[in-house]
Amino acid sequence: MARRPFRRRFPMSLSEKLTAFNGGTTMVTIDMIWDAHAALKGVARRTPLENAPRLGKNLYIKAENLQLTGSFKLRGAYNKIGSLTPEEAARGVIACSAGNHAQGIALSAAKHGIRSVICMPAGAPISKVEATKSYGAEVVLVPGNYDDAAREAARLAAEKGYTFAHPFNDPYVIAGQGTIGLEILEQLPDVEQIVCPIGGGGLISGIALAVKSLRPSCRVVGVQAAAVGSMYESVRGGRLTTVPDRDTIADGIHVLTPSELTFSMCLQYVDEIVTVSEDEICAAILTLMETQKTVAEGAGATSVAACLFGKVDISEKKTVCVVSGGNMDVTMLSRIITMGLVKSGRIAEITTKVVDKPGSLISLLQIVSQTGANIVSINHAREDEHTDVGTCTVSMVLETRDREHVKQIKNALRAKDYTLFNT
Amino acid sequence: MARRPFRRRFPMSLSEKLTAFNGGTTMVTIDMIWDAHAALKGVARRTPLENAPRLGKNLYIKAENLQLTGSFKLRGAYNKIGSLTPEEAARGVIACSAGNHAQGIALSAAKHGIRSVICMPAGAPISKVEATKSYGAEVVLVPGNYDDAAREAARLAAEKGYTFAHPFNDPYVIAGQGTIGLEILEQLPDVEQIVCPIGGGGLISGIALAVKSLRPSCRVVGVQAAAVGSMYESVRGGRLTTVPDRDTIADGIHVLTPSELTFSMCLQYVDEIVTVSEDEICAAILTLMETQKTVAEGAGATSVAACLFGKVDISEKKTVCVVSGGNMDVTMLSRIITMGLVKSGRIAEITTKVVDKPGSLISLLQIVSQTGANIVSINHAREDEHTDVGTCTVSMVLETRDREHVKQIKNALRAKDYTLFNT
Repeated sequence: MARRPFRRRFPMSLSEKLTAFNGGTTMVTIDMIWDAHAALKGVARRTPLENAPRLGKNLYIKAENLQLTGSFKLRGAYNKIGSLTPEEAARGVIACSAGNHAQGIALSAAKHGIRSVICMPAGAPISKVEATKSYGAEVVLVPGNYDDAAREAARLAAEKGYTFAHPFNDPYVIAGQGTIGLEILEQLPDVEQIVCPIGGGGLISGIALAVKSLRPSCRVVGVQAAAVGSMYESVRGGRLTTVPDRDTIADGIHVLTPSELTFSMCLQYVDEIVTVSEDEICAAILTLMETQKTVAEGAGATSVAACLFGKVDISEKKTVCVVSGGNMDVTMLSRIITMGLVKSGRIAEITTKVVDKPGSLISLLQIVSQTGANIVSINHAREDEHTDVGTCTVSMVLETRDREHVKQIKNALRAKDYTLFNT
Repeated sequence: MARRPFRRRFPMSLSEKLTAFNGGTTMVTIDMIWDAHAALKGVARRTPLENAPRLGKNLYIKAENLQLTGSFKLRGAYNKIGSLTPEEAARGVIACSAGNHAQGIALSAAKHGIRSVICMPAGAPISKVEATKSYGAEVVLVPGNYDDAAREAARLAAEKGYTFAHPFNDPYVIAGQGTIGLEILEQLPDVEQIVCPIGGGGLISGIALAVKSLRPSCRVVGVQAAAVGSMYESVRGGRLTTVPDRDTIADGIHVLTPSELTFSMCLQYVDEIVTVSEDEICAAILTLMETQKTVAEGAGATSVAACLFGKVDISEKKTVCVVSGGNMDVTMLSRIITMGLVKSGRIAEITTKVVDKPGSLISLLQIVSQTGANIVSINHAREDEHTDVGTCTVSMVLETRDREHVKQIKNALRAKDYTLFNT
């Protein structure tokens, strides 16, 4: 994308005004995003932006899960490392992360030919440790949790003179993420709304600064996991807030306290922040796999979840969902698939009992078959909490159309005097 | 893509020669592919073609799994329906398919505003039936297998005057699929090799005709599932061959007999045909999910499997793998993930026995923990085929790095006198 055309289309004064307004509080400017855009050329992928008509006629997906390293984090990390002085570069960088930031820093450092050290909690998934090593980083496994790893990283930075690369509280990192905003404006010039996941807020701060500088009429909506809504609470309460530590499938945006920098940028540039539940995130992951054939991690799917479950109005506005990453553990994915199918009524487990004599299982299966359900598995057992002498428990896993279909099957069975247990 | 530039780059006479050579046997010409290319504009997606460095530095993926309807079949189907006379269009089309062709025909007919009827075997997955209906087709569920459904489709076509749309034995269908060849040449002008799944042969026939007409030096390699290698056997034996019906995860290319048309085109234009095993296909599906964040169905992943497992040499040539579709049942996907992890040594199940007294499980777990493996689940049981009075069986599912790691763990346990059962 040429730099000039954009700048000519919008009044210079607006960008200058925003930058000036920004002034004291933050150190990120639209010019830094343009510089990052130039620096990332040939390094970061210009990821696809595609319409997703099966999710909504106005819905588009910016697929940062297809970015190198599997997430947008490469952009900020590469831009940060490019900003180091020759002396800093010679000493190397250190970061603390069990996830996408680690891989972004590792690959970026390798591409700049400098040393990188990543501190990870010792219990981090082996796949993430291996991926980070494969990009060329030295991994230090620190006993304990994330905080212990962060302390060790700070200690090593002080001792060895490494530059500490923060995942979001850094103007160069934010400027790098902001390049996504420039790409969206180029790929879909008439975009009216951008929906973006928020963890620490680096991604949305960069995108929102870019978009509000160049296209102030475009809405920017942030999404957090309801379980860890730190930016949501901060903006609602008007001050930087720490939320309690709770589990979320969206581990990539599991941040208990945003930074002053990203908080102030969200206050200035983000129109609205919404939250989504864990179930909604899982359903969005499954929908993205089934309809878009794409693998999103929990954090990455929150933007789509917000649109699918009515948290963001997409009936009128041409809306881009940023799917920020795809580094989902495949074993977890397999659990999410099952959960999602059960929740949407496309798999149902039905347990009943039958008389323990030849032919009684066949009678049961005939009723099921007449309802149009396919049998996935059957467990037929004599000893069980529900059985008495002369009866057997039958548990069936059925492939069904939807929740309504599951109800029909249950009603058909009850009409024939079968007792259903797990309903 | 402008039509002219391509034609100017290559001598007209070559395309004409090929078409003439083609003459009697087939009825597909490069001009028909250009016409299809024009007809598909604004209908079929120009799917992304991206480098996949984690799979191979010379490896590129043409992602037809991101095509509308989730597979390339839309291209041929739309082109076919566009070729109908007004009288034929008024009467409607019929097809027989439980998969991608059904969805391609359904959406194409809807876009042309004509009626479509799809015959499916009654046992077809509910998800595929629902998807086909959602694109606007009437679905006729025919008791029995695929052949029964095909007979019913033929009967209905004769009775009602519908045009029967064959999935691959049709010049317009082949020409539609050939547009992928044109896109590849435009997206990666220095492509040296294209690897493409083969079922009935419609996809590769179209692509190979396009590529050999415009860039004769580019190799075209076909891939079949070893379980159902009908084109492989036909080309090897020099005559149209029917292979025995065997199961394959690649249901999209489960074709027992190719057609004369596609067979003759493969003989003329395809450089080589290779086969891949079911395990290789599963591993490729998993690799595509993990490294490319993309969902491929079995058939679609065969091209990548051939490259990953050394069936096609990609060390020298810039190679494009056509990932032809992504309509994989998600429940199946979840089983493939598990199989793939076990096969690559990233999940291991180890069963042993411990003395039935306090602390003995802890001793076992300490050894496992020292090897760096994570515990996914543990089953500790007193009654089991392996136990005698005073011992318990412990089955552990472990997250491991690779096969070598699994060996290390087993050796560490044997060194401490644990008996291992399932090895």
